[in-house]
This record gives sequence, structure tokens and C-alpha cells, in this order.
Amino acid sequence: MFLLPVFVIAQNEDSIMIKKISDDILKNGKAYDLLRQLTKTIGGRLAGSPQMVQAEKWGLETMQLLGADASYLQECVVPHWVRGKGDVVAIKKINNKTTSKTLAAAALGNSIGSQKTIVANVLAVADFDDLEKRKAEVKGKIVYYNSGFDVTNIRPFKSYSESGIYRRNGASRAAKYGAVGVMIRSLSESTDNFPHTGVMAYNDSFPKIPAVALGIQDADAFWQLCKQNTISVSLLTHGKMLPDTIGHNVIGEIKGTEFPNEYITIGGHLDSWDLAEGAHDDGTGVVQTLEVLRALKVLNYQPKHSIRFVLFANEENGTRGAEKYAAEAKAKNEKHIFALESDAGGFTPRGFGFTMNAAQLNKVQAWLPLLRPYGIEQLSVGGGGSDIGPLNQQFGTALGGLMPDGQRYFDIHHAANDVFENVNKRELLLGAVNMTALIYLIDKYGL
Amino acid sequence: MFLLPVFVIAQNEDSIMIKKISDDILKNGKAYDLLRQLTKTIGGRLAGSPQMVQAEKWGLETMQLLGADASYLQECVVPHWVRGKGDVVAIKKINNKTTSKTLAAAALGNSIGSQKTIVANVLAVADFDDLEKRKAEVKGKIVYYNSGFDVTNIRPFKSYSESGIYRRNGASRAAKYGAVGVMIRSLSESTDNFPHTGVMAYNDSFPKIPAVALGIQDADAFWQLCKQNTISVSLLTHGKMLPDTIGHNVIGEIKGTEFPNEYITIGGHLDSWDLAEGAHDDGTGVVQTLEVLRALKVLNYQPKHSIRFVLFANEENGTRGAEKYAAEAKAKNEKHIFALESDAGGFTPRGFGFTMNAAQLNKVQAWLPLLRPYGIEQLSVGGGGSDIGPLNQQFGTALGGLMPDGQRYFDIHHAANDVFENVNKRELLLGAVNMTALIYLIDKYGL
Repeated sequence: MFLLPVFVIAQNEDSIMIKKISDDILKNGKAYDLLRQLTKTIGGRLAGSPQMVQAEKWGLETMQLLGADASYLQECVVPHWVRGKGDVVAIKKINNKTTSKTLAAAALGNSIGSQKTIVANVLAVADFDDLEKRKAEVKGKIVYYNSGFDVTNIRPFKSYSESGIYRRNGASRAAKYGAVGVMIRSLSESTDNFPHTGVMAYNDSFPKIPAVALGIQDADAFWQLCKQNTISVSLLTHGKMLPDTIGHNVIGEIKGTEFPNEYITIGGHLDSWDLAEGAHDDGTGVVQTLEVLRALKVLNYQPKHSIRFVLFANEENGTRGAEKYAAEAKAKNEKHIFALESDAGGFTPRGFGFTMNAAQLNKVQAWLPLLRPYGIEQLSVGGGGSDIGPLNQQFGTALGGLMPDGQRYFDIHHAANDVFENVNKRELLLGAVNMTALIYLIDKYGL
Repeated sequence: MFLLPVFVIAQNEDSIMIKKISDDILKNGKAYDLLRQLTKTIGGRLAGSPQMVQAEKWGLETMQLLGADASYLQECVVPHWVRGKGDVVAIKKINNKTTSKTLAAAALGNSIGSQKTIVANVLAVADFDDLEKRKAEVKGKIVYYNSGFDVTNIRPFKSYSESGIYRRNGASRAAKYGAVGVMIRSLSESTDNFPHTGVMAYNDSFPKIPAVALGIQDADAFWQLCKQNTISVSLLTHGKMLPDTIGHNVIGEIKGTEFPNEYITIGGHLDSWDLAEGAHDDGTGVVQTLEVLRALKVLNYQPKHSIRFVLFANEENGTRGAEKYAAEAKAKNEKHIFALESDAGGFTPRGFGFTMNAAQLNKVQAWLPLLRPYGIEQLSVGGGGSDIGPLNQQFGTALGGLMPDGQRYFDIHHAANDVFENVNKRELLLGAVNMTALIYLIDKYGL
């Protein structure tokens, strides 16, 4: 034995430890039951909502139950958008012929409601170039953006990034030319008709007009209809920005034995859109974070560095929790060596993406053989997440993001079908296995 | 350009061709619509059932529509098992106290029904070792096998292989000691309560006794109950083996331009269990096979070798279609260079497994960079499938099997929830993309 190179012994130790982690989580993991609690007893929990408060309480109590050395709420100011009563969009006329067909529609997050019914003709455009070409026709109309995904992208996240600009900026781009409302094709390639909400923002230079997303079936039929016909639609939404209110990051800690003042952060976001239960987005990241805490405590792992488990506030429509966490860390002059986020759905884990320097990446990539037996196939460049991004900006902290299989994510993302029933227990737990293993390796070897 | 090594030019050509395949399938693929037809208009299609006949007709017509150079039915004798009216299992007594709790149960495929209600005490055993230790207690009882998956296996297929012996052999192993019936825990780790059927077989040396599978929730509760109590259950099943009947493999061909007498086979099985629609098992393999045909024809690919698209009969409870296909090939002295099967669910593709010699495997593994952009992470040793296995036994034909992500498969496998709604369009199409790409490479370069 004593002739074996040191790294072989270390790798054996590590593979034994990771097998212990995996066996314990797959047999005794609580993430699935915790997710049921979060989604079924609390549900959607947008910043400022009563459910946000319930979720914070639940998160704090759960961290205590799981044996965190310390746990507390970190106050932050959050925006408070409410949808109000039901969004109603309908086709009223086709070529001046009266009709009435309700479309599956949902107001975009942070959008200002029409408050009363608007009726207007539609200008349907393929993209912003198309809008610019036809800007003379926009005034007084409702603009429809056919913001479809490029289905030839193998990674749906790429398509989401490409099309996301229509949801984020489409309203003001159209308001600039006098539009009275906008509609987009939901950012999805689902085969159903649930509309997908998500955050948008106004450019203050132009009027704030209402904005909705249509379900994919209705959107595709609508786009075809608009090609040949003059269409008039009615639109009624009730969205309001109420005054900012108070929310909290929920934080648990395990104290480091060697470097108690050096932090590793792991987290997901506790808030979720109001249309559903926020199961994959980001209930799964929340309960995986809690699962890592549970597993490390049960296995009696004494980390060298302090590990922070953070359920971030307000990722969806403000990222104020993320900003607060980094600002507090800065104010206290904390040292943050690594942060890991899970916010891409609770599907089968396939990799981690990293934002770190080349030396750190080399170090991490050498661990691939240890993670491969648990389904990780790549440790790649680029990754992190919006809740840990500010740590990197503040301190240059190295970041990692769990990369689950992404094919199903946009079927349910921000839509009414993002529910507990669409999460698979083993896929969820396997994500937590790999997250725990990565945290273990980074804590043990540093970065 | 002319200075580039030949293999670089070839790889560029290949990557361009595979991108064309991928774009066409992801944009224009018909697999999802075909799956809807097969599952929703035909449904479960066990060998010998009227739906088997409908599915064969549908398969043949679809191959013609997709432009196969030739298409035909290949007759084979198939077994004809029928479940009969509903399976009923209930707890009747707990420690002599009368009760009545119906359990979610389904007779195992090919099992002989009790025809009338049996009431007997239960002997619950963990495994065959436990049964052997307690063989003196078996006589007159219904044996329950707690055939749970080892959840610490990362690949559920491994757990299925390990536990499958209780479904296949459990009845006769218990009948040997005088059991009057057997029940197993469904071969699944689902969180729901659907019972999972699947094929079993009797050892002719012992009485043929009825056999059922329990849904996981009921099975787990039942196992706990049996630990502390004397339990009596009633069991009523109606399964019957009718006389063998006629089924067909459905075969389409594209004629080879250089080696028309050398065959590449690609297929899935057309039959499926009666409890559901056979969506993932193996509707997805069927429609992926048809998708490969569609894509090659649309892209006007002229293969060097003849390509056969085969929808195999009777995989589930006999594999007579597979045997017939190999026997016919043998009778005609055909040369079969490769066969590919998709029968592990229509989930995100992650690899292919191969049964072939080392030189062939080296050749295939060199193509990994061409497939990786489409989600394939491993081209590994071991794989094929029960429908192409006989070709390997007959001719030593090299085999490949699509390896999709396997975490969800046993949630729906052989159970009432194996329905169209549980198949994701993009995951299904991505499987077909990689199957088409692999067939293209093998046809172009040979093996």
C-alpha cells in the first residue's frame, strides 16, 4: 500500500466518500419530501406575496431541523408585483368579421396591466428587424412577436437566451413606435398550451404598455392567422407594481474547522412565479441545497471551510436577494472561495459549468473520473447563475452551476405545469448527490 | 484546402451531413405525430390482440408513406395471452381480524389466472434466500416477494436486471414448496401506485400458480404490515394462454447502391403490454425507426448497404418476431453487418452500447466527436437488445442499442402510465437524430 502514489490513495478515499454520499442520498434523501411540502403546502411564492413569508419560515425551520450550526434570515428589500385577477386576451375580429376566441395568455412579470379592456388591431412580426421595417404601421396597434425557439439548437437554454429579448424588451421596443400592447409567443417549445410568464422591463423613455405571453398552440395558430388576415384582439390585464417590501434570504451554515472565515456558498432561489408551484424553478434547487446540508451533517462531515446554504430571495423579478448577499459579504469583508447554484431544473444531472480561472478549472476537471459514475459527463467552461453572479463581480469568487438535462425544462418553465408531479425523485436526488460530491471536493482540496 | 488530411475533410463532410440530419429531424420530424397515432388510435397491442393486427397495418402503410423502396409483412407464429377481466387482490384478514383493502395489482404476463377467488395466508419474503430458509412454511400460502430495486445503483436498468428474477421465476420457485399464488413488488421505484406487469415463465415441474405485481405504494405498506402480522389475502385473476396465432414483423427497406446484399437493420418492437399504450415501451423505438427512414429518404441519402427498418412482433412475451427475422435471414443466407435497436424508452439519448469486436468498437468510438454535439457522451461496450440478439447469435452480427437517460423509464415501464403524454417530443427526436447519424456513419464506413 505504501508504494501507491499519494493521488491514488486520495482518489480512493474520495471515491469511497462520494459513494457514501450517493448511497445515503439515494436511500435516505429528504429532498423529494421537502419539495412536496414547499410546492403543495406553500405553492407559488413570488417576492412580496404571503407565500414568500411562509416559504422563508419553512426554509429557516427546515435548516434548523437538518442540523445547521447556525441559521438566520437576511433581510432585503424586494419588489412587489401582483398579477391581479385573470388575464384575458381574445380575438375579436378577423377581417372585420366579428368573432370571439379566447387565447391562453398570461401577463409578463412586472408588466403594467391595461386595467380596462383594450381592443386594437394586431401587427404580427417575426422579430425586431421585422418591427423596424414596419415601424410606420405600429401606432395604435398591439404588436405580436413570434418569438419562437430555434429548435435546431441542441441546448434549449441557447434558444431561450436568443428569444428572451422579446419578453424582456419587446414592450418598450414597440411602445417606441406607438404600440398600445404587446403579445409574445411563450419562451418554450412545449406541445401544450400553457402560457409562460417571466420578467420583463420597461425603458422609461417610452409609455409603459401591457405585455402578455400566449400558449404555444394558440401562438402558432395566431401567427398563421395573422399572415393572411387583419386581426383585432381584446386585451385585459391587471398587473401592478406595489411599493417595495421586505423579503429575506434564508441562510444556514456549517462552521469550517480550518478556515472558518472562508466561505463556500451553495444555493437556489426560494421565490417562484405565481402561475404554478415553482417546482423545477426553483423548488428543486432549494431542496437540493437542503439535501446537501442534510447529507453532510448525517455523514458527520466536518468541512475545512465554512459552508453557507442560501435560499435566495427574489431571483425571478429583481435578484435583490443575490445583490444583498454579496453586499453583506462585502461589508463584512468575507472571503468567498466558491459558490454553487442549482437553478436549471431538477432533471438528471449531466454536468457542471464553471466561471473560474484556468488553474482552478484544471483542478476541478481532474475530478471528472470521481463524478462520472454518478452521471456527470462534463465539467465545462461557463456557468454559475444569477444568484451567485454578484459574488463573482464583488470578489472574483469562482462559480459553478449544476447542468441538468435541459430538454424538458422549457416545457414547464414559468408556466402552470411547473408542479411537483413533474419532478422525478431520482433525478432530483442524483443532482443533490453530485452537488454534495463537488462541495466535498472543493472543500477538501480548496481552489 | 487540398493540404488538409483526408480524415479532416471526411469529418467535416460528416459533421455537415449530421447537422443536416439533426436540423431536419428537429424541425420536420414526424416521430411524435406517429407516436400519437400509434398510442391514441391503436393503444396497447399485445401479440395476438386485435390491436396487434391494426398496428401491423399502420406500420406497413406508414413505411409506404415514408417512401420505403419496399415494405412487407413477415409472418410469424406468436403466443396469445389474454388477461381477461380485472385482476382483484385484497387484504382480507389482519391477525384473524376481518378487513377489506383492495391492493393495486396486475397479473404478470403469461401467468395462469386463478379463475376463481383464492384466499390464503401470506408468507412475505425478502428474496429467494429468505424463501429457502422458510420453505417449510410455504405450503398453502401466497408468497409475497419484496423484490425492490437497489436504489443505490445509478443505472436503474441494473436494478431491473437484479430484481427481474422474482417476476420471471418467482411463481415456480414458490410453487415448488406448495405455494398457491405469488405476489411481487412491481419492478419499479416509482412514487405512484400503478402495478407493473411483464413476462413470467413457469417451470413445468411444478404447479402453475397465479402471479401478480403490486403497485409500489401498496407493496411497501404491505411489506411493513407483514413484518408484524399474520395477513390473509384474496386473489382473483383470469389470465389464459390461448392457442398460438399469427403475427408479423413489419419490414421496410432502402436498397443499397454498392452492397445491396449486405444489410443494416434498425428496429424497435411493435407489440406492447395491455395495461397502457406502450408509449415508451416501445412505441418510441418504433417511431424513431420510422423517423430514420423518413430522414434518410427526405435527405435523399443513397446508402451503400441495404437498410432494413423492422418493427418486431412479440418482444414482450415471446420474442418470436426476433427469432423469425434471424431465421429467415439465415434461410436466405443474408449478410448482416450491423443491427441497431431502440428499446429503452424515448428519453434524452446519452449513448450507444455495442456488442462487437475490438476493431469494430475502435472504429465506432472514433466517431464520438461527431455525435457529442447531439448529446451522446459514450459509445460503450455491451448493448443491443432482445430483438436483434438472434442476429448476433446466428451470424455474429455487430449490435448496437440506443442508451437514453434511464431514470424515468421504470416509473412507467409495463404500467398504465406508459402513455403518449409521458413522452417528450424533443427527447424522442434527439434519439432519432443520433440513430440516423450512427446508421449513416456505419453505412458510409462499414464495420
